[in-house]
Amino acid sequence: MQRPGRMMAAEMAEQPAVLRRLLADGAPAIRATAEAVAEHRPRFVLLAARGSSDHAALYAKYLLEVRLGLPCGLSSMCTTTAYGARPRLKDVLVVTVSQSGGSPDLVASTQAARAAGAITLAVTNNPDSALAAVSEYHVDVLAGPERALPATKTYTASLLALYLFVEALGGAAEDLPGAARLPALAERILARHDEVRTLAARYRFAERMVITSRGFGYPTAREAALKFMETSYVPALAYSGADLLHGPLAMVDNVSPVIAVVGEGRGGEALRPVLDRLRGRGADLFVVGPERHVAAASAGFVLPVDGVPEELQPVLEIVPLQLLAYEVTLARGRDPDAPRAPAKVTGTR
Amino acid sequence: MQRPGRMMAAEMAEQPAVLRRLLADGAPAIRATAEAVAEHRPRFVLLAARGSSDHAALYAKYLLEVRLGLPCGLSSMCTTTAYGARPRLKDVLVVTVSQSGGSPDLVASTQAARAAGAITLAVTNNPDSALAAVSEYHVDVLAGPERALPATKTYTASLLALYLFVEALGGAAEDLPGAARLPALAERILARHDEVRTLAARYRFAERMVITSRGFGYPTAREAALKFMETSYVPALAYSGADLLHGPLAMVDNVSPVIAVVGEGRGGEALRPVLDRLRGRGADLFVVGPERHVAAASAGFVLPVDGVPEELQPVLEIVPLQLLAYEVTLARGRDPDAPRAPAKVTGTR
Repeated sequence: MQRPGRMMAAEMAEQPAVLRRLLADGAPAIRATAEAVAEHRPRFVLLAARGSSDHAALYAKYLLEVRLGLPCGLSSMCTTTAYGARPRLKDVLVVTVSQSGGSPDLVASTQAARAAGAITLAVTNNPDSALAAVSEYHVDVLAGPERALPATKTYTASLLALYLFVEALGGAAEDLPGAARLPALAERILARHDEVRTLAARYRFAERMVITSRGFGYPTAREAALKFMETSYVPALAYSGADLLHGPLAMVDNVSPVIAVVGEGRGGEALRPVLDRLRGRGADLFVVGPERHVAAASAGFVLPVDGVPEELQPVLEIVPLQLLAYEVTLARGRDPDAPRAPAKVTGTR
Repeated sequence: MQRPGRMMAAEMAEQPAVLRRLLADGAPAIRATAEAVAEHRPRFVLLAARGSSDHAALYAKYLLEVRLGLPCGLSSMCTTTAYGARPRLKDVLVVTVSQSGGSPDLVASTQAARAAGAITLAVTNNPDSALAAVSEYHVDVLAGPERALPATKTYTASLLALYLFVEALGGAAEDLPGAARLPALAERILARHDEVRTLAARYRFAERMVITSRGFGYPTAREAALKFMETSYVPALAYSGADLLHGPLAMVDNVSPVIAVVGEGRGGEALRPVLDRLRGRGADLFVVGPERHVAAASAGFVLPVDGVPEELQPVLEIVPLQLLAYEVTLARGRDPDAPRAPAKVTGTR
């Protein structure tokens, strides 16, 4: 047997190189695609995806709303594939995000959207995929083959590709200094793998966990929860801070660990009352974020952001949480590469 | 001390009367509101809500897409309230669903939407609320005061009110025979409370559960998970059947009970491969749905639907699951009326 988690470890470690490649080789094509899409003057955006790609789509939704003022929705594919809905999609940009580009339900719903008048864009890691073929436009996230079941490098690559696309769609300058700093910052985070291994001991016997954030960090909370569930099988519930106060907080006490993703910016600020409530309940609170928030928590990982704007921090925030899910899984004697339900491309219709 | 769960029990029991009142006294005003909204010819719908109301909003999203072909999105309030996004909302109908109508973030995001040109509609249980005041249009769900923290009668009333609104927006005839059958069917379900009490023993020691569905039943899965978490504190993870196959299925084995909401219709059909996979993994499967699906599962509750169309079945599907969450909570020695984090109206901004 191969060393457990070998594939996932290698793919996590590739992330700085993938981000560099995307900035150097991918950005011009993404900009050209965005300019072509902009000529259609979309008025609404629908995003369709599943799994980790759905969290990348949620990130894009925040970007499109905050940066461009474009109203957005996350699409429910089954309204088309199961119920035969025929939405009126003139002036609507439909963005489908899929690592493999192979899910039949995404292909079918994209075809239906295009037939209904939508501008269609596929964001995939496979330019030869069925999804890329049926879409009018395509963005390649250039992450290289991903073999471990838990998506890591395709996730961060999708976030950066979507950021480059949205900024170009809004007519931003080609020079994006925050983005240029990401590869080196991701390297610095990955170099602290030993620190995360020590922190992972905390969750050796956790029976569940809650992961929370607000704003741009919320997709990170969702993606981190999925990482924990598909590698360590620890049930991890992701909530936006506001939703957490609406009921599920009753579940949190000093035996339910909470991980909070605290952005350096307005989303992090908006999370502050939630963190106060959690501390007031005696929750075991682990923070990924600025030093002052980590210092006030039970434990955490100080995220280096070096002035990278809040809307780009999600590319970094997920990395220590990937490492944490990986290390918790090893600590529990499981193989992060070989979950019990292997199905990299699902065949759902 | 009062008998535990007294308030929640009384409010669940009121549901047939609330549905009758809404059909008799509420429907004409809802129809008039829908006709006024239709004159604006909305091209896109954004829905905003939190907690149980968010699940009602998700239900409305399916209805609007499937029945009217209107593209929809669920709004992230914090893009407006935390990040100051100013979306361009001409031709956009913004529907805000809130039992109390008092959440400051919903009021603020509705005001911002109206200022940005949106058609605004509030769906609340309080016509005197701040949310109703700042919205151009209002639908009253007429459920009467709700005192227990877990929403029950306001949830089913919101579903029916949204159904009546969407059907009228689409120009349907006044006579909706399926809707007229709901109060009596809800009564028949509530009369089987003893049957649910027996079934609840199954979850006396459950450490977690997974709740799944597809299509119109998916909001029911989400709402049922919230009911379990806010009353019994059992971590309950809701997934659409398609998403469940994308990773979290690894968590399901013969110690993780699964509840499946199986509609009589296309959503239920689309769930069939997921049910097969779950049975193949030896999952403890509890079905709320048609008799043939209950018979093939480990346990379940046969839902009487009497020809009520699939898009209206969610009003019924949640009722046995409310009863189940209530009974599991009592069986665990807790009070469904008095969760540990009482905050009926959250003050999140």
